[in-house]
Amino acid sequence: MRSKATLEAWRARVDEALARQLPDDALEPRTLHAAMRYAVLGDGKRLRPLLVYAAGAALGASPTASAEDALDHAAVAIELVHAYSLVHDDLPAMDDDALRRGRPTVHIAYDEATAILVGDALQSEAFLALASAPAPAEAVRAALRELAHAAGSRGMCGGQAIDMAMTGRAQSLEALATMHRLKTGALIEAAVVMGGVLRGADPATLEALRRVGAMLGLAFQIKDDLLDAEADSATLGKTAGKDEAQGKSTYVTLLGLDGARARLDDVARDLDAALAPFTDSGNDNGQALSDLAVMAVRRSR
Amino acid sequence: MRSKATLEAWRARVDEALARQLPDDALEPRTLHAAMRYAVLGDGKRLRPLLVYAAGAALGASPTASAEDALDHAAVAIELVHAYSLVHDDLPAMDDDALRRGRPTVHIAYDEATAILVGDALQSEAFLALASAPAPAEAVRAALRELAHAAGSRGMCGGQAIDMAMTGRAQSLEALATMHRLKTGALIEAAVVMGGVLRGADPATLEALRRVGAMLGLAFQIKDDLLDAEADSATLGKTAGKDEAQGKSTYVTLLGLDGARARLDDVARDLDAALAPFTDSGNDNGQALSDLAVMAVRRSR
Repeated sequence: MRSKATLEAWRARVDEALARQLPDDALEPRTLHAAMRYAVLGDGKRLRPLLVYAAGAALGASPTASAEDALDHAAVAIELVHAYSLVHDDLPAMDDDALRRGRPTVHIAYDEATAILVGDALQSEAFLALASAPAPAEAVRAALRELAHAAGSRGMCGGQAIDMAMTGRAQSLEALATMHRLKTGALIEAAVVMGGVLRGADPATLEALRRVGAMLGLAFQIKDDLLDAEADSATLGKTAGKDEAQGKSTYVTLLGLDGARARLDDVARDLDAALAPFTDSGNDNGQALSDLAVMAVRRSR
Repeated sequence: MRSKATLEAWRARVDEALARQLPDDALEPRTLHAAMRYAVLGDGKRLRPLLVYAAGAALGASPTASAEDALDHAAVAIELVHAYSLVHDDLPAMDDDALRRGRPTVHIAYDEATAILVGDALQSEAFLALASAPAPAEAVRAALRELAHAAGSRGMCGGQAIDMAMTGRAQSLEALATMHRLKTGALIEAAVVMGGVLRGADPATLEALRRVGAMLGLAFQIKDDLLDAEADSATLGKTAGKDEAQGKSTYVTLLGLDGARARLDDVARDLDAALAPFTDSGNDNGQALSDLAVMAVRRSR
């Protein structure tokens, strides 16, 4: 974990950028703006923003250069999409969860109507942030298409719909993988690809980044299922054991704990191979991306 | 109404473009995609898309030129944002409405989780459509910022939040106007402005278009309140008399029927004045925009 200080600096950087992007809660409508800030600011892992920065760095961006401004906008945008999806997924009609990041979910802390609007407004804010990125307009347009595609029915929303339809019914491993590829994978992939797009990466490099994102998303999800089965709520910061209680198929229910751990090891090896073009180049540019991959596999929450 | 055939052609044009943009319901997740199409396709007024085309035409666009392709994307995008907002506004935790455009609302025809996801995915699809517009990237970026700003907490979502907070409490006319300016006005304004942006309008022209949009939005809302108070559900295509039943302040509850009608006359005059730069130019370019203004004031549903 040689890049720990870099990752910490990026985390602080995106937190500041998020606080700047979100409307002040002194601005009307105050409750909505306060709830938007509540949903986003605080103790997030910021995995997707860190992937944006790390992918940019893998293409040779200096980790502290002011040219990172465009990456800030992409980092903010992807975290806002992620945050909105959590707010809506937690709603009573969806996963009905009361605890998130160790705090009451938005519809508990405020109310259901506010939570719906918070999610809706955060999605708009994400595209506003990205459209305002100080980068060539063609690169911004490409990043916008990447994010919109990954967020919509062919990506995250589609995955959530498949997840809802699956609940309580036995699934094949293949169906589970498809669901996760859309629900979680698409946005993680988009984070890595957007970092490259805003750095002007060529199509072949973007495809290599996309493969890193895809493998990283898969590793992240298997680890998530393992954590849900293993951890207690206090460590996890959200309600543990929910998957089993809701009759959801997971890598653990389908493969068992040992089987899921073995699958995660396999994916970690594929991920290493996907990272090779960015870590074998004789310089340290890909280090942060590689460290984030390790974190996705080894994290405790 | 000299431009009736033009408006009908545009309506058919945006309906076709919407049907093309939305994922086929044979594509997984099928229920989500079918519900997205259900929410959007069918008997909409398409006011906002028509405003996009009309604003483009007011700046000299030939109403049938293939150069209208970029306007198609903006027209689709704004209608998708409008459609998503209706789906979410109709949810039980929001306005709790069972009837929309003469048909069961999405959460009635499908279920609540699907309706939440339909709205979320339609918003993403809107930005995907606009980001894909065949126009100079800088113009697309400006249109995206306009739409994202109008859709978010400083626009439509903010207006809906204020509307929810107002329900059941007496309001001043000023508070009501602010709420509507955000909730309905922002998107109508964005429609007119986007048409200009994609035609490369200069800042002064964009401001003149913005004023048309603002006045048109206000007229549209006063008329909406009048229709809700006057019409029956069959004519309106949605549940009539809802405003009064929900204890909402409207132009009718605050001004009375005659007062609201008088206010609408005043706004119609202001709207005529705002339209002057586009109708006094000795050519017919502004005719459709002017006709849409008349329709907003005189419509029966």
